[in-house]
Amino acid sequence: MSYGLLRGKKGIITGALDEKSIAWHVALRAYEEGAQILLTNAPVALRLGQPQALAEKLNAPLIPADLTQIPDIEKLYDEALRHFGGPVDFVLHSVGMSPNIRKGKSYPEIDYDFYQKTLDVSAISFHKMLQVGRRKGAFARGGSIVALSYIAAQRVFPKYGDMSDAKALLESIARMFGYFLGKELGVRVNIVSQSPTPTTAGTGIAGFEAMFDYANKMSPLGNASAAACADFVVALFSDLTRSVTMQTLYHDGGFSMMGIAEELLG
Amino acid sequence: MSYGLLRGKKGIITGALDEKSIAWHVALRAYEEGAQILLTNAPVALRLGQPQALAEKLNAPLIPADLTQIPDIEKLYDEALRHFGGPVDFVLHSVGMSPNIRKGKSYPEIDYDFYQKTLDVSAISFHKMLQVGRRKGAFARGGSIVALSYIAAQRVFPKYGDMSDAKALLESIARMFGYFLGKELGVRVNIVSQSPTPTTAGTGIAGFEAMFDYANKMSPLGNASAAACADFVVALFSDLTRSVTMQTLYHDGGFSMMGIAEELLG
Amino acid sequence: MSYGLLRGKKGIITGALDEKSIAWHVALRAYEEGAQILLTNAPVALRLGQPQALAEKLNAPLIPADLTQIPDIEKLYDEALRHFGGPVDFVLHSVGMSPNIRKGKSYPEIDYDFYQKTLDVSAISFHKMLQVGRRKGAFARGGSIVALSYIAAQRVFPKYGDMSDAKALLESIARMFGYFLGKELGVRVNIVSQSPTPTTAGTGIAGFEAMFDYANKMSPLGNASAAACADFVVALFSDLTRSVTMQTLYHDGGFSMMGIAEELLG
Amino acid sequence: MSYGLLRGKKGIITGALDEKSIAWHVALRAYEEGAQILLTNAPVALRLGQPQALAEKLNAPLIPADLTQIPDIEKLYDEALRHFGGPVDFVLHSVGMSPNIRKGKSYPEIDYDFYQKTLDVSAISFHKMLQVGRRKGAFARGGSIVALSYIAAQRVFPKYGDMSDAKALLESIARMFGYFLGKELGVRVNIVSQSPTPTTAGTGIAGFEAMFDYANKMSPLGNASAAACADFVVALFSDLTRSVTMQTLYHDGGFSMMGIAEELLG
Repeated sequence: MSYGLLRGKKGIITGALDEKSIAWHVALRAYEEGAQILLTNAPVALRLGQPQALAEKLNAPLIPADLTQIPDIEKLYDEALRHFGGPVDFVLHSVGMSPNIRKGKSYPEIDYDFYQKTLDVSAISFHKMLQVGRRKGAFARGGSIVALSYIAAQRVFPKYGDMSDAKALLESIARMFGYFLGKELGVRVNIVSQSPTPTTAGTGIAGFEAMFDYANKMSPLGNASAAACADFVVALFSDLTRSVTMQTLYHDGGFSMMGIAEELLG
Repeated sequence: MSYGLLRGKKGIITGALDEKSIAWHVALRAYEEGAQILLTNAPVALRLGQPQALAEKLNAPLIPADLTQIPDIEKLYDEALRHFGGPVDFVLHSVGMSPNIRKGKSYPEIDYDFYQKTLDVSAISFHKMLQVGRRKGAFARGGSIVALSYIAAQRVFPKYGDMSDAKALLESIARMFGYFLGKELGVRVNIVSQSPTPTTAGTGIAGFEAMFDYANKMSPLGNASAAACADFVVALFSDLTRSVTMQTLYHDGGFSMMGIAEELLG
Repeated sequence: MSYGLLRGKKGIITGALDEKSIAWHVALRAYEEGAQILLTNAPVALRLGQPQALAEKLNAPLIPADLTQIPDIEKLYDEALRHFGGPVDFVLHSVGMSPNIRKGKSYPEIDYDFYQKTLDVSAISFHKMLQVGRRKGAFARGGSIVALSYIAAQRVFPKYGDMSDAKALLESIARMFGYFLGKELGVRVNIVSQSPTPTTAGTGIAGFEAMFDYANKMSPLGNASAAACADFVVALFSDLTRSVTMQTLYHDGGFSMMGIAEELLG
Repeated sequence: MSYGLLRGKKGIITGALDEKSIAWHVALRAYEEGAQILLTNAPVALRLGQPQALAEKLNAPLIPADLTQIPDIEKLYDEALRHFGGPVDFVLHSVGMSPNIRKGKSYPEIDYDFYQKTLDVSAISFHKMLQVGRRKGAFARGGSIVALSYIAAQRVFPKYGDMSDAKALLESIARMFGYFLGKELGVRVNIVSQSPTPTTAGTGIAGFEAMFDYANKMSPLGNASAAACADFVVALFSDLTRSVTMQTLYHDGGFSMMGIAEELLG
C-alpha cells in the first residue's frame, strides 16, 4: 500500500539492524511512500545485522557512524548533503543500548561507567545528531524528526533499568531541541513511545516476554506492531502533521491510558 | 493535494457550520482523500450557517440532529446506516457551546442550568453518540473516532470558563469509551487538542484575540490552523494510526510543552 | 499523636458517614491537631451512618445538607459563619455516588438521568460549595480546600464507570476555582487522589476487592490507608503547604508511577 | 513556629550554601522541628558559602563531599552512621550546576564535556547517593528522601538550557529508585518542583529576573518562597506523608496548572 505521502522527501534512518527493527520497517515504509533514504548504522551493527540487504533494496547509501562521536556524525551529514544535493526532510533516531541491562545489573546497583554509556548511546546521541545537523544546515525547513521511546520514561518498569533514565533524557532533549528547531526552521521534533516490540534489542531485556504479554493484555487494541509503528512514523514525517511538535506520542494500543486490565485480575 | 488515504471509508462529521469551522475543513479534506461523508448539524446551525453549501459540494446527506437528544441521534445513525449501506469508519465530534460564556458569567459565578447545558452539548453529546452508535452496530471494525478539545481541559485559561470543565469531561469520555470500543471492535477514540482557532464559536469567547495572540507567540511553530488540523484528523481517520487510542493529542504548534516564551517577557 | 498543626483553625468536613470513611478520619485527625470542626452530611447519610457519634466526640455541630441544593449549602455556610464567628480555614469535599454503578449499568450503557445525578452529587456539588462559600465570604484568607478523587480521572478502570468522568470533572473544577480563589483570597484548592479505600461507598463498586488487591500489589508501599490519607489532608490544611494549589496529589503508595508490577506477572 | 514534626528523626542535608539556599531553609526548619542534622557540601562551597555558620547554629557536623565521587559519598555515610549511631530518616538532595549555562552556551550549542558535568553533578549524584546509602544500610525503614527540581523537566524554558535535561533525568532517578527503596525499606522518594527561587545558583541563570517575574505573575499565589519550600519539605520528611512516593510535587503557587495569565496579556 502506498499513498505517496513522502514523495520528494529525503531522510536519514538510524538503527535499522534487521527485519525485526522498527527502523527497518520505517525505512521500508518511507521508501514505499516515495522518500529517498539514507541509512546509517554503528559499525558493530554492520557486522551483526543485515543493513546492507536493506540498503540495496531501497537503493540507499549506508553510512557507518558511531552516533556518540561528533566526527562520525559530521561525516554522516556531509554524505547526506552530498547524496541528496541538499538538506533532509526527516530523521529517525532509533538507537539504544544499556551495558547495565546486558550485564544483568539491577537498577540500584548499576555501574556508572556503563550508565554513562547507556545515556550516551541512547539519549545524548540524539542531541549530537541535532546539534551537528543544525550547524551544518542539514535540516530542511518544515522537516520532521522522530525518536523512539518507551513509557518507562514516565512510569516504572523495574527491569527496564537505566534505559528508563535514558528515555526520560531523550524525551527532554526532543522537547528542548523541538523549541529551537521549531523557531528557527519550522522543524518539528517528536517522540513516539511505542509498545514493547520484539526487536533484537528489546528481547535482550530480562523478562521481555512477560512485559510483552502484560502490555498486550493491558492494551485494549493489543500491543502495537513494528509495522504499525512504521505507518505512524510515516504520518509524522508527512505534511499531515506539520503542527505537531515537542510531543511524546503513545503508539501503544491504549496501554498508557489504562489503570487496570480485567484480564490480569484473578 | 490528495493521497487517497480514506478511499473506501465512510464517516459522519458533526459541527461543520461555516468555512471557519474545523469540522468544515475536516469534511473537505476527508472527501478529497476519498471518503464518503454524512454531515449533521443542530437545527439552529442549519439556519445560521451554510452547511447546505458544503453538503452539495461533497455530495453528502445533511441530517439535522440535536446531539443532546437520543431520538435525534438514533435517527442520525439510521440514516447513516441506510445511506452507506453499513457501518461508518469514522466520526468527528466537533460540538461545543456555553451559555455561561455567552452571557458573560465568570467561572465562579456560573448559572447551574447553563452549566448543565454546557456539559450536555459539549461533552455528554459525545457519550450519547458513542452509546447509540454502539447499540446500533454503526461502527465498523477498526474504525476511528475523534473529538476536538482544548488544553483548558488540563490548565487554567480563566476566560474559557465552564468550557474547561466540559472539555475535561469530554476527554474522560473519550478515554473510557476508547477502552470499550477498542476491546469490542478495535475502534479507536482520540482527542485532538487544537490551538485556539478563529471559528465562529471560538471568537465568541471574550478576549479570544488576546488568547490567540498569546498562544501564537508561545508556540514555536505558531498556532495550528484549521486546515492543518483537518490534515491531522485525516491522518487519525486513516490506517496510518491504527494503534493510537485513548490519547489526547496536542495539535498546537508546541504550545503545550512551553513553559515560557521569550517573546512575552518584558 | 498531635502536633498542634491546626491550632486555631476552623473547618467544614463533608461526607463522614462511618468509621470507614476517609472524611471520618480527617475530621478526627483535624480535631486532634487542634481544629474546630463542623460536620455536614446528606439527610440520608444521617439515617444510614453514625455521624452523630462523631459530632459528639468532636463537639462539632452536624448540619444536614444536600450538597446538590444551593439553599442547603447557603444554610450550611450561614450556620458555619455563626458557629465559628467568622470564615472557615479549610473544607473537605468527600462526596460521591453513582446510581449507574449501583444499578450495575456498564459504562457504555449508562442511563443519562443517573449520569446527571452522578455528576451532580460527585462533582458539581463541589462547584456549588465553592460558589456559595465565596459569595458568602465564608473562606478565610490563606485557607485550604481539598477534594478527594481517584486515579480513574486519568486512566481507565472499566468498572469504576461513570465515576471516572465525575472525578475528571471534579479535578477540573478544583483547578479552575483554585485560580480564582487563589488570586482573590490566597486560598488553595487541591485534589487528593487516594488509593482504593474500603469505605462503605468504595466497597459498593463491583469487583472492589480485586481492584484493591491489584493496586496493593502494584504500589511499592502498598495501598494508602484512610488513616494515612487523613494525615496527608491535615498537612494540606496546615500552613506547611501554603504554596501548593490546583494540584492533583497522588496519595497512593506509588501506584500512579508504576508501569508494571513484578508480582502481577505469571 | 515548631510543631515537633521531626522529633527523633535524623537526616542529611546537601547543598546549604548560604541564607538564600533552599537547603539552608530546610536545614533550619528541620532542626526547629526537632531533627538532628548532618550537613554536607562540595569542598568549593565550603570556601564560597557560609555552611560553617549554619553547622554551628544547628550543632551539626559538616562533611565535605563531592557528590559525584563514590569514595566521598561512602565517607559521608560512614560519618553519618557513626554520628547518628544508625541510619538516617531523611535526605535532601539540593545540588545542581551547569557549566554550559555559566559559559553562556545556548542549548543547541552545548559543549558535551560540560553537559556530562551538568548531568553528573545535578542528577547522577542523586543516584550515587541512593546507591551508596542503600548499600551501606544507611536508610532507616519508613524514611523519606527529597530532591529539588524545576518544571523545566516537563516544559521548555529555553534559557534553563541543559539543566532541563538534568532535571528530567533527576526525576526519572527518583521514580526508579523510589520503587526499589519503597519495596525494600518502605522508604519514599519524591521530587519537589519549586518556583524559580533567587538563590545564588538560580540568579546565575541569564534572564533569571525575567523568569522570576513571569512565573510570579502567572502563579495565582505568586512564586513560592524558599521558606515555604522548607515547610513543604519538612511535611514530606514527616510521618504525615508516609504513603506519598515517586511523585513530582509542584510547590509553585499554581504555576504548573496555568495556561495563561491575564496579567501577561496586552
